[in-house]
Amino acid sequence: MSYTISKKYASMKPSAVREILKATSQPGMIAFAGGSPAVEAFPCDEVKKLSAEILAEDPVSALVYGVSEGYEPLRDTVKAWLKKRNGIGTDDDTVIITSGGTQVMDIATRILTDEGDTVICEEPSFIGSLNAFRSHGCKLKGVPIDCDGMNIDALEQVIKETPRAKFIYTIPNFQNPGGTTLSWEKRKRMYRLAKENGLVIVEDDPYGNLRTAGDPIPAIKTLDRDGIVIYAGSFSKILAPGIRVAYAVVPSKMAGSFTIGKQVSDVHTGVLNQMIVHRWFEEYDVDAHIDRICKVYRRKLNLMCDMLDEHCPEIQYVRPQGGLFLWARLPDNVDMTDYCNRLVERRVAVVPGSAFLIDDTAGCSYVRLNFSTPDDDSIVEGVKIMGETLREY
Amino acid sequence: MSYTISKKYASMKPSAVREILKATSQPGMIAFAGGSPAVEAFPCDEVKKLSAEILAEDPVSALVYGVSEGYEPLRDTVKAWLKKRNGIGTDDDTVIITSGGTQVMDIATRILTDEGDTVICEEPSFIGSLNAFRSHGCKLKGVPIDCDGMNIDALEQVIKETPRAKFIYTIPNFQNPGGTTLSWEKRKRMYRLAKENGLVIVEDDPYGNLRTAGDPIPAIKTLDRDGIVIYAGSFSKILAPGIRVAYAVVPSKMAGSFTIGKQVSDVHTGVLNQMIVHRWFEEYDVDAHIDRICKVYRRKLNLMCDMLDEHCPEIQYVRPQGGLFLWARLPDNVDMTDYCNRLVERRVAVVPGSAFLIDDTAGCSYVRLNFSTPDDDSIVEGVKIMGETLREY
Repeated sequence: MSYTISKKYASMKPSAVREILKATSQPGMIAFAGGSPAVEAFPCDEVKKLSAEILAEDPVSALVYGVSEGYEPLRDTVKAWLKKRNGIGTDDDTVIITSGGTQVMDIATRILTDEGDTVICEEPSFIGSLNAFRSHGCKLKGVPIDCDGMNIDALEQVIKETPRAKFIYTIPNFQNPGGTTLSWEKRKRMYRLAKENGLVIVEDDPYGNLRTAGDPIPAIKTLDRDGIVIYAGSFSKILAPGIRVAYAVVPSKMAGSFTIGKQVSDVHTGVLNQMIVHRWFEEYDVDAHIDRICKVYRRKLNLMCDMLDEHCPEIQYVRPQGGLFLWARLPDNVDMTDYCNRLVERRVAVVPGSAFLIDDTAGCSYVRLNFSTPDDDSIVEGVKIMGETLREY
Repeated sequence: MSYTISKKYASMKPSAVREILKATSQPGMIAFAGGSPAVEAFPCDEVKKLSAEILAEDPVSALVYGVSEGYEPLRDTVKAWLKKRNGIGTDDDTVIITSGGTQVMDIATRILTDEGDTVICEEPSFIGSLNAFRSHGCKLKGVPIDCDGMNIDALEQVIKETPRAKFIYTIPNFQNPGGTTLSWEKRKRMYRLAKENGLVIVEDDPYGNLRTAGDPIPAIKTLDRDGIVIYAGSFSKILAPGIRVAYAVVPSKMAGSFTIGKQVSDVHTGVLNQMIVHRWFEEYDVDAHIDRICKVYRRKLNLMCDMLDEHCPEIQYVRPQGGLFLWARLPDNVDMTDYCNRLVERRVAVVPGSAFLIDDTAGCSYVRLNFSTPDDDSIVEGVKIMGETLREY
């Protein structure tokens, strides 16, 4: 007699896509497949200084157990900053610190769904979140995206057809992988639909601060008079991902369950990590830092677009107004998986678009390109190789 | 129409016990309720030095995304150290770094159970792990403990009666809260029973290195020729809990699922945190550090026992051979909850034993005492107050 893996995990097999992703970490590879901020955007010296100060002045606080909701001074700082910068959060919301943004999706799924319930999401959407939903035995129901984000007519239809739907998962700004931004009109319609149908909205906004063009659109969370939106933000893209500090703005009536979910996940997020972020706000101008890194990303995004227009005119894309990704449509005569494999042979790694589909064996003619991780020379070189490889078909 | 919390979370209400636990964090409270290592045992200067070196020499590695399995040099170091120190791990095992030990229980539950499955555990057992199991919709089935750990006859009976049991959860060394250590004979019988019945053993060993008396007993994992034991260790008690670095030794055939579970939980554990632990091994003698802190704990444990014998002769307990906790039985004429409340009024916090039961409303005449967090004066003062309060009944 032998043990068995749980049903929900037995169905989570490593896909063919993972094999291509593995290749992307090989040395010498031009990495258009990542999602890491630009190395030049990391405030290394600042983190070094802040860490040294904390461990000199208050090492015990940094090393002892913390509370599950998060380091109180950081929670207060995030709350005030979000309110001032984005108008997010009311007295009826609770800020809870998490170990990266994915943990918000994981905990939201824990507290809102039972096995067999459905999560409604954009399709394509971020593979990490989709896997978090799947890993709790949830079904996924996709809604197509237009240039201005999720198609709300289609959403309405999906809601009608899905009695066990529990929440809508959306990345409203510079969607991963689509690059699209949900319009203000659509945000209001989505909120209304959620409210009318007893659904929660999980608003995943890791890229919202990385706007490189156009005007900011208020978060769906700013509409939340009914306590039905969980807003997720992160320091991974504006400070550094390795530090694993993110946050959720949770309606107070869900906060108790969310805190239990956090507690059983990892008790609390590293205290030194949280103190570094807190002190970063105390000693530096975070908004000015964001402005600086947006300049870096604007340059890189524009460079990649210019290179694509020059070397790959056959590739179609909608220029995103921020974020880290371009969603590039290959011409009809090109087999996407074959193209990705040929690129890997030429030391260029892109993510096959099928990775972001609910059924990753479905046909897909897109690839996701990241412009933040590679340096400028690699962007030029990589897109040239992409063009040469296209010409082989 | 309104959303609902998932069935599994709707049943996880904050208990009366939590209210007492909250009181324990008030300033001026003598903290016998905690579970934190002694402050004097934290290697603060070492962490300060290591962190400074890392952020001076290799800041980008510390700040960029890591892989889900953990920082490779740390994984190798832990693997070699475990092998040398405890004989744990074979070529057919994979070491995976987690964000604290609780995350190992959480991921094990994800990959091994579906809603409605059962976890077999010692009763009483660590409330944090029990809640992790419950939070995935698992049922709990308790097995009583004797002076030498879980009663294996009772375990055999429970296994027979529980067709949907998936794994046995055990804290073999200095059990939390019982303080008992599972004998070698019993470890072998438990392993055999698990093997015969298609069960996995999740061996939670956060305290194993904190032995203050007697000889070490090999881990159940050292018996694992069949790939059915997940061993969990942690740096929370030997380095510092706030750093949130622990590890699982996972049979290779489960490692793929375990890694997916880690990925959807929090992508990876903080890289700076992992690098600090790795460098701690490189630059310092970790085994010598453990010897030093064991001396601290031996002194504190003996002090608390001496004080109990002097001031509370009515209280019965089995002197543990290590760990952080004493499991103290009150005399029959004392109402445990009432006693805990009276102690809080006198600024002494202990954990009501019922917190560690599967049904925390069941009667219980025990309290858990922690001797690592309070300083020596507080141990003396607190136990005196415990004795005075006993005399009121």
